[in-house]
Amino acid sequence: MIGLCEVGPRDGLQNEATVLAPGARAQLVDRLAACGIGRIEAVSFVRDDLVPPMAGAEAVVAAITPRPGVVYAGLVLNERGLERLRHTTLREAHAVIACTESFNQRNANATTEEAFAGVAAIVAAARDVGLRATVTLSVAFGCPFEGAVAEARAVALAERVAALVPDEIVLADTIGVATPWQVRRVLAGVAGLGVPVGLHLHDTRNTAIANVYAALEAGVRSFDASVGGIGGCPFAPGASGNVATEDVVYLLEREGFPTGIDLDGLIGVARWVAELLGRALPGSVHRAGPALLDG
Amino acid sequence: MIGLCEVGPRDGLQNEATVLAPGARAQLVDRLAACGIGRIEAVSFVRDDLVPPMAGAEAVVAAITPRPGVVYAGLVLNERGLERLRHTTLREAHAVIACTESFNQRNANATTEEAFAGVAAIVAAARDVGLRATVTLSVAFGCPFEGAVAEARAVALAERVAALVPDEIVLADTIGVATPWQVRRVLAGVAGLGVPVGLHLHDTRNTAIANVYAALEAGVRSFDASVGGIGGCPFAPGASGNVATEDVVYLLEREGFPTGIDLDGLIGVARWVAELLGRALPGSVHRAGPALLDG
Repeated sequence: MIGLCEVGPRDGLQNEATVLAPGARAQLVDRLAACGIGRIEAVSFVRDDLVPPMAGAEAVVAAITPRPGVVYAGLVLNERGLERLRHTTLREAHAVIACTESFNQRNANATTEEAFAGVAAIVAAARDVGLRATVTLSVAFGCPFEGAVAEARAVALAERVAALVPDEIVLADTIGVATPWQVRRVLAGVAGLGVPVGLHLHDTRNTAIANVYAALEAGVRSFDASVGGIGGCPFAPGASGNVATEDVVYLLEREGFPTGIDLDGLIGVARWVAELLGRALPGSVHRAGPALLDG
Repeated sequence: MIGLCEVGPRDGLQNEATVLAPGARAQLVDRLAACGIGRIEAVSFVRDDLVPPMAGAEAVVAAITPRPGVVYAGLVLNERGLERLRHTTLREAHAVIACTESFNQRNANATTEEAFAGVAAIVAAARDVGLRATVTLSVAFGCPFEGAVAEARAVALAERVAALVPDEIVLADTIGVATPWQVRRVLAGVAGLGVPVGLHLHDTRNTAIANVYAALEAGVRSFDASVGGIGGCPFAPGASGNVATEDVVYLLEREGFPTGIDLDGLIGVARWVAELLGRALPGSVHRAGPALLDG
């Protein structure tokens, strides 16, 4: 079974111009869960005044109708965020650290060492209270400030993070520059870490589905994706954002990989989100349809 | 060296709502050649009244400023088309036959046997007058009328076409449904035919770059592509069309495959075409930029 983690309600909506109220965000989460998606990053525990699209995390979670078997997760940037999360019904915390010094400094106002200490504290605290915890390594394939990121650099950070024993390490192509060959090389470097590895891909330069394919061939069975491809790339105005969930599901289902996801239902959700946001979304399959290939 | 055949002036513009005059179409061809693209499908020799966006093929060719080393080609649907082509400066004819009976009937009003006889006549006539000739097998990965196309069916037609000894056989994913695994299987089936094989991919369901990657890994060194991803899919309103040339070049250049193409120049052409056509184009890299990864 391929596991998809839907990040549209968080990474997607956080980067959209249209801000949705907590009720609509909870409705989006519920609709995604109803399609059979097994894991959803629903909220981010940040300060409402600093990130208005993510305001009201607790209100979103309270408005969700939990579906049995679905893992609902939240992004936490520090121990305060984790403290907020553990007082909700969420059972999984997602922490983040960047592979470059510049990105940690400019995105989180922390050195890489400070960011690492923060991630270590989150993972330990989550374990203490019985929560699952994942760690995303952002800009693992390229950085808007430092340019190319050597594979050894991503692998070295992954080794340090693996020692924290999180439930998953997620390699993120934050600015959407990775190629499938690069994905293969980085995956080869982290293959022996003993921690499940997932991928978080942006489709900014149209390589995301190729990267999913290369990762599948390399044995990866966990991918983040965002319904409709919502989100955009904060470092490339007008560009596509996260890889679209329905595009990933199309790829998988065409080839017989089981996902447990209702593709037609998911296409319906993507079209509904396009109406909510009032713009054409970058995903492909919700516009083209899945095609009639069983005839 | 990876060979790209730019089909934007033909397959692209033929499926756009905005019709460009022959002078503008010739200018597009010249701009693409100036970026270092080695082969360009510039026109289609059809009846002006039946396909208005392709009207004036001879006028387009006459307005092109030929660039040394560039192969300029035209699509021909029958021997009349080839007769028109040979009275121009073009040196390569592109013929087409579909892998399914329904598509040949509905797209060309011919049985598959009639279509095959037509292709055979074009290839023979081209050889007689010293022109290069390629044959595209359309709907090789899926058909809008018959659904799934078994790999053996595409391979069987490729075997018959190979016996005509064209300069290239091009497998076309006309409606953009192929997956990289399917591409690999079909390519394995045609590997021993003794004729160079190229791919013509549509990005309708976001799989085109993954398919390019899979084909590169399988040894293919020739791809059709369309600047900006212009074209759309006539069977999926609102969907993306041909894979964008600049997206393919980005993939190749990031990994060090030589293309001889100026990516920045190509991005400029894509942006110019978007202005000409008055719409946002589906390609990704001309919107996002190539990213600064040499830093």
